[in-house]
Amino acid sequence: MQQVNLGMIGAGTVGSGVFHALQRNGNLMADRLGVKISLRKVAVKTLGKTRAHSFPRSLLTTDWREVVNDPDIHIIIELVGGTGVAKTIILAALELGKTVVTANKALLSSHGKELFAAAAKHGASLYYEASVCGGIPIIKSLREGFVANQFSAIYGIVNGTCNYILTRMKLEGAEFADVLADAQKLGYAETPPDLDIDGFDAQHKIGILASLAHGFWVDHDDIHTEGIRTVSKIDMQFAQLLGYTIKLLGIVKQANGAKTKHGIRNTKQKTRNGVQVSVYPALIPSTHVLASVNQVFNAVFVRGDIVGESLFYGRGAGRDATASAVLSDVADAALDLKNNAKIRVPPFVAHAKNACVTPMDEIVSRYYVRLDVVDQPGVLAKVAAIFAAAKIGISSVVQPEGHEGESVPLILMLHDAPNSAMRKALAKISKLPAVKSSPVMFRVESLE
Amino acid sequence: MQQVNLGMIGAGTVGSGVFHALQRNGNLMADRLGVKISLRKVAVKTLGKTRAHSFPRSLLTTDWREVVNDPDIHIIIELVGGTGVAKTIILAALELGKTVVTANKALLSSHGKELFAAAAKHGASLYYEASVCGGIPIIKSLREGFVANQFSAIYGIVNGTCNYILTRMKLEGAEFADVLADAQKLGYAETPPDLDIDGFDAQHKIGILASLAHGFWVDHDDIHTEGIRTVSKIDMQFAQLLGYTIKLLGIVKQANGAKTKHGIRNTKQKTRNGVQVSVYPALIPSTHVLASVNQVFNAVFVRGDIVGESLFYGRGAGRDATASAVLSDVADAALDLKNNAKIRVPPFVAHAKNACVTPMDEIVSRYYVRLDVVDQPGVLAKVAAIFAAAKIGISSVVQPEGHEGESVPLILMLHDAPNSAMRKALAKISKLPAVKSSPVMFRVESLE
Repeated sequence: MQQVNLGMIGAGTVGSGVFHALQRNGNLMADRLGVKISLRKVAVKTLGKTRAHSFPRSLLTTDWREVVNDPDIHIIIELVGGTGVAKTIILAALELGKTVVTANKALLSSHGKELFAAAAKHGASLYYEASVCGGIPIIKSLREGFVANQFSAIYGIVNGTCNYILTRMKLEGAEFADVLADAQKLGYAETPPDLDIDGFDAQHKIGILASLAHGFWVDHDDIHTEGIRTVSKIDMQFAQLLGYTIKLLGIVKQANGAKTKHGIRNTKQKTRNGVQVSVYPALIPSTHVLASVNQVFNAVFVRGDIVGESLFYGRGAGRDATASAVLSDVADAALDLKNNAKIRVPPFVAHAKNACVTPMDEIVSRYYVRLDVVDQPGVLAKVAAIFAAAKIGISSVVQPEGHEGESVPLILMLHDAPNSAMRKALAKISKLPAVKSSPVMFRVESLE
Repeated sequence: MQQVNLGMIGAGTVGSGVFHALQRNGNLMADRLGVKISLRKVAVKTLGKTRAHSFPRSLLTTDWREVVNDPDIHIIIELVGGTGVAKTIILAALELGKTVVTANKALLSSHGKELFAAAAKHGASLYYEASVCGGIPIIKSLREGFVANQFSAIYGIVNGTCNYILTRMKLEGAEFADVLADAQKLGYAETPPDLDIDGFDAQHKIGILASLAHGFWVDHDDIHTEGIRTVSKIDMQFAQLLGYTIKLLGIVKQANGAKTKHGIRNTKQKTRNGVQVSVYPALIPSTHVLASVNQVFNAVFVRGDIVGESLFYGRGAGRDATASAVLSDVADAALDLKNNAKIRVPPFVAHAKNACVTPMDEIVSRYYVRLDVVDQPGVLAKVAAIFAAAKIGISSVVQPEGHEGESVPLILMLHDAPNSAMRKALAKISKLPAVKSSPVMFRVESLE
């Protein structure tokens, strides 16, 4: 049986998961693929460290170049993470024409174009299934399974930490800060937690999915990103009352030509193929299957013009789920090497003409707004007048009884309107003397 | 750009879907793949027929051999269906070394081994993603995305017709026969409906998934199959009361060495790698995500030893969803042809040693049993004595009040026990004079 040799750089959580999975199922993979996969060298920072799965000393080196430059090693697995030495390692491997498998979403997000160009220049392959939603084969499904489709919408719950926090806030009626602190204790959130809870991890992932779905590389600076710090217990509860659940969504939506119920159409978008690519907490119908995706689980809802609606659900992170994805890339790479078809599927094909990310201001959404207002006559009239002047229709108003104190919550559900109009209206509303704190606004996604 | 030419045999529902999708997204596929895909010939039964998408007359022929034998045609799409001429067509194409794409689960189920042997003999490829769950890329996901996993359990809602009927029975409290008649009127069920509602369509699909997951070709005769004719309104309602939903499940489960709570272990299974492969209506927890898969949608829940739990959800049938799957196979085949890697992924790899389907009698399950009993003292004692003698533990009993007439329903939930023990116990119970009609039994799957 033909053999393909692996070298691994980084032996942390995912690295030990890959080692463990190969020990457990390596023979099974060889049976299935007709290629033997052999881990030959592992570069680590320190030799002495205790690891979840102890690598045989004979595999280890502290010099990543020794792994990359070994002529017997065909596939380099980069599990260092970050955008520093990881980039140097990948470029060095690609330069030698080697196949690279990575789980490094941050690096792809920042330097994807450069890496793809290097791969193309040197006739090398670059695989990255593990970079998005760990155990969910979403890259393979979008790129291969749904290759015959245009993607009108992709909605992803792609950050397990945020989903864990929002799930507990919903189920326990708890406040954000308390759940976050607990999540940090339990190891579900990092310290500091910014990368996750400010939406940047989701931004990296949704940017990669958007790029694959729409055929142009999405610059992460173009992705409108909001995290979940603004979600509070009271909004979670009002959302539930109204039939919604708040989830942090990565959203990729065809934005052009979408005429809304209220006849708003952005004429600027007609000549471009505009795509909404964004990350924000949104109210989604509690009856939708995405609303039932709880705890650290991830899910991606995909609407293709041919295939219709699909959902993929699974573990988005963790040692083993990510290792499973890394090894699926290794398997593809091994089959391609076996068949002398090294770049059968190029890392990225930029084929879309005139496609671009539509600025958030031009996106039309529905909205949930919560104001903290003085309980006196005339406040609602003033708020309503500002929305009316901005041509934003109000679909419902809730002012619950029984709130004591100087101010009361006023919740408004608003019809489709461009984000620019909403932004300006909220700026005006926040200046009203009767409005006691900054307005809270979340978008409402019907997922239809 | 390189070009790959297609020939299609059969221009019914799925065929016109493929034609439509290629017209709509053919250029996009070429951009993504770097290969132009061109439909060159379509064999039909009759030329004059009106079709959903009218094929240009120049493409049509009534002689399938003209398509298969055309030296310019590289890929043959078989959409004739059935196990007759479809087999002849596929074998003829494979003999010429051509790549075949099929959606024909019935044919694979009956003659898979013969077709795979022919493909191997002639160095040809055979793809069949569209044969299982239409728009869900489940074959690609099991075989490629999860290649590093052993599959401890696969639970599939794989027949849209049955799921549509069971969903309406649950939501509307309707009887099976009424919903079936309505489904036939609406075109969601065929006339006669046997292939779907007696579980054979699900059997074909789950057999293919079991084979791919466990590495030996599962003979359809070995798949214990029950349909949904035995599900009645009253059982759906009692199930709901107890926290369960009845779904027709295709089940693939590692059966060997599973020691149950009650210490039952089948020693015969120790030396074989036994796999449960079966189709039956089962009670599943209403809180499980599979219980929310409604209407004609399909879903497959997969538990891998590395990746953990995953779920795939989408349209399992229909013109466009199936066409999307056919074209994903065409795309894979086109990439392989472009790279001279024609059988990069063989149609089927039989690698498992000593693996077999465990007979249903040896499978250990939990049970829901409903008896129609005379309302008199001593009946429960007699029933309980029979279960006790069979060493089947009773976990709960419900005998609802308010039922009038000569007999009353008696519902028992039973602990883990081999199916043989349950079969024998029910035979004895049905002979009790106080039991007025055949006992109704469904298995309970906790999906844990």
